[in-house]
Amino acid sequence: MIHAEIEIEIRQVVQDKRRVLTNEADLASYSYDASFGVFPPDVVVQPTSTNEVVGIVKVANKHKTPIYPRGKGTSLSGGPLPVHGGIVLDFSKWTDTLVIEPDDLVAIVSPGVITADINKMASEYGLMYPPDPSSSHVSTIGGNLAENAGGPRGLKYGVTKDYVLGLEVVTADGEVIQTGGRTVKNVTGYDLTKLMVGSEGTLGIITKAILQLIPKPQSTGTLMVLFDDLVIAGKAISSILTGGILPSKLEIMDQASVIAVEQFEPSGLPTDIEALLLIELDGHPAAIEAEAQRVKEICLEIGAREVKIAETKEEEAELWKARKLVSPAIVRKKPTKISEDATVPRSRIPDMFQRLKEIREKYTIDLVVFGHAGDGNLHPNIIADKRDIEEMKRVEKAVEEIFQAAVEMGGTLSGEHGIGTMKAPFMEMELGAAGLSMMKRMKQAWDPHNLLNPGKIFPEPGQRFVLTDE
Amino acid sequence: MIHAEIEIEIRQVVQDKRRVLTNEADLASYSYDASFGVFPPDVVVQPTSTNEVVGIVKVANKHKTPIYPRGKGTSLSGGPLPVHGGIVLDFSKWTDTLVIEPDDLVAIVSPGVITADINKMASEYGLMYPPDPSSSHVSTIGGNLAENAGGPRGLKYGVTKDYVLGLEVVTADGEVIQTGGRTVKNVTGYDLTKLMVGSEGTLGIITKAILQLIPKPQSTGTLMVLFDDLVIAGKAISSILTGGILPSKLEIMDQASVIAVEQFEPSGLPTDIEALLLIELDGHPAAIEAEAQRVKEICLEIGAREVKIAETKEEEAELWKARKLVSPAIVRKKPTKISEDATVPRSRIPDMFQRLKEIREKYTIDLVVFGHAGDGNLHPNIIADKRDIEEMKRVEKAVEEIFQAAVEMGGTLSGEHGIGTMKAPFMEMELGAAGLSMMKRMKQAWDPHNLLNPGKIFPEPGQRFVLTDE
Repeated sequence: MIHAEIEIEIRQVVQDKRRVLTNEADLASYSYDASFGVFPPDVVVQPTSTNEVVGIVKVANKHKTPIYPRGKGTSLSGGPLPVHGGIVLDFSKWTDTLVIEPDDLVAIVSPGVITADINKMASEYGLMYPPDPSSSHVSTIGGNLAENAGGPRGLKYGVTKDYVLGLEVVTADGEVIQTGGRTVKNVTGYDLTKLMVGSEGTLGIITKAILQLIPKPQSTGTLMVLFDDLVIAGKAISSILTGGILPSKLEIMDQASVIAVEQFEPSGLPTDIEALLLIELDGHPAAIEAEAQRVKEICLEIGAREVKIAETKEEEAELWKARKLVSPAIVRKKPTKISEDATVPRSRIPDMFQRLKEIREKYTIDLVVFGHAGDGNLHPNIIADKRDIEEMKRVEKAVEEIFQAAVEMGGTLSGEHGIGTMKAPFMEMELGAAGLSMMKRMKQAWDPHNLLNPGKIFPEPGQRFVLTDE
Repeated sequence: MIHAEIEIEIRQVVQDKRRVLTNEADLASYSYDASFGVFPPDVVVQPTSTNEVVGIVKVANKHKTPIYPRGKGTSLSGGPLPVHGGIVLDFSKWTDTLVIEPDDLVAIVSPGVITADINKMASEYGLMYPPDPSSSHVSTIGGNLAENAGGPRGLKYGVTKDYVLGLEVVTADGEVIQTGGRTVKNVTGYDLTKLMVGSEGTLGIITKAILQLIPKPQSTGTLMVLFDDLVIAGKAISSILTGGILPSKLEIMDQASVIAVEQFEPSGLPTDIEALLLIELDGHPAAIEAEAQRVKEICLEIGAREVKIAETKEEEAELWKARKLVSPAIVRKKPTKISEDATVPRSRIPDMFQRLKEIREKYTIDLVVFGHAGDGNLHPNIIADKRDIEEMKRVEKAVEEIFQAAVEMGGTLSGEHGIGTMKAPFMEMELGAAGLSMMKRMKQAWDPHNLLNPGKIFPEPGQRFVLTDE
């Protein structure tokens, strides 16, 4: 229950009644995201201006009430969950700014804009906004900024952070600061822009972003490569990348993914292969044609079973269909999907597949692996039923072991989903006590009362990893 | 003079006598860099291991003595100047690690490695380290990391920061932390890696870096385009970039630069043009050929006087010669060169040229403009004689006005040279009081005694802009 005084003050800031939600049914729909756990907030506010955000932060500050920014709630790591109750700031109504300025190669956006709409509009100017998380058609740019979203194009084009030039941020004190600007080169003081991106709403609230656009590649080409041996597939990836070719996407599916897809919607993929690579090249058509032939040669020399090159846009779509079907195929088996994003150095991909195989057997879990092999960002997905507590306990142990394996191999807990509530207990394992303490000092310096998205990134006392909604 | 006790403790940490310098002649050679001002340190230490750095930081901490990291002293902003005396850490002897790991597309480097050597070694593996500051053959990677160095390839490939995946850092307390790792995707907590890069040695001391490499483009192509009108040149830049073409370099020279070069070493360039663009394309040879033709068409349609496409490597080198001669040509006129790097949004390049012309006339200074037009990073260079105090006062005012113009146009004080001592007085003009205060809080949280490179980035009380050595 929200304190009456807080509600009154919030309603003074946001005078449109429809944008301040306090009834139980509304609050319930803000109590979860695409991860685990149910935490109803005390009030939901839907700001549509920086001034409103400033006003609400000042109310939160006065009453020392936590405040949680939220986009469309697609987070896989618990980013927007109001774990300590308080105020949820729902940015999904704030979509009024989406401006492309082609001469500066930038887009100016407000936080509630749907990510895919940015690239769509940029495209009309012959430009591209490269980050393409698989949620881009439903997630907001605000959420993408908070979590530093990635996607398949990360291999060639990097992640959200690489395309953020400037931000408007409301601090925990309710001050408005501008970070960066609209130039690629800017070394005026500390890079607060890149610090904010991926800080999961714990350091400030992003109210505007200036995003960098690039010229849109003229064309794309797609190859599918089948391998009898996973280690050989790993070697093929290295050979392509050190052979002067940087694909725009380089995705992998393991045997279990291929089998799942073939059971779901048969398309004639051989189910006895150990790995399937899907490779997209982009750029000038002449270069793509030559590079596709070179990729084919490299893969066949190394020992691929078969290489298919799409000749038409239809064939291209057909080849990508297998990858697109993985998620729907696996969720049909059991209702609960735990999608991890532990990332390893590229050279360790074959080792990681081996460890994942051992983990699957050790805990008798349903595990398929696919993901962005080109940048080492695998997605081990575990399929389970969260009503089966015993199974979920095994899954929890398996996930812990996946994290350990990634960190041991010089990788990271999270490549693109964020830490949130889910992975906070493992932070020290990756960063060490000193590394984590330097992050805490920063949080302390900027948000001494821990009002901004508390319970995220930093483990709370005694916090452990749980995959149930309790 | 160094306190005897500090010297004894330092010599316990670094037992090799040749790497602890205290005589006056040695100290004098560490008292300046490529900017302005002379500040002798009390002692110079040349560490060659993380343990030695930890030891020295602990001594500094115990005695509350400032400590200044330094590479080869090529800074144009005063980055390594020991403005408050104390300990200079000269990293230029620490060159033992330069390892390319091609399967992970990374280079592992120690801080004293010369930047150009990284790309040279990567090249042997078919890989590229893109950042190419013009000092790369003399500057160290440690200095490049501290200042977030840029260069002509920034347009297509970004700056130093975009290629740093992980760092080893010694904190102000003498703790060693590892930031990031060796994967492109990493969202595990705050991005301390990108925060450290460009923080000018004020937040920690970088003792190792993991740098990202990319496949080396197969080929390059070069065009020179002559314009009667500067505004038309600006429009041509926009049209190229929104036409689906991203050159690897897009450099501009104004009329004064062309005249200076022709006076220095005549090569038949017309001195009545208002602007000259040099454009490098890289990638697959077939794509380069097609793109070069397209660039030519775009420029001629817009109104360029002439477009030359290099047909051979020799012709390519010939076209770039004019750009390479600008610096030697202008320093022949007068001994003191003040090289600025104020950066504006691309669309404001013509306006910036206009303002620079006005500033040149208003203060009767010798000003030429060239630089990285593709990313808005111009280099207004003022030629003067620092013994002429009256002239230098006019130059100081002109530079102040250049900074104001850049900030008014939505640009930044510094695109790639850093703030250092030189631009600290202007920080609030760009960032506002609140923005600057958030940066100070961070400095305070990590280095409460202000031991790490004090006097940089943040203006000191009453500090004003001076271009003389007094």
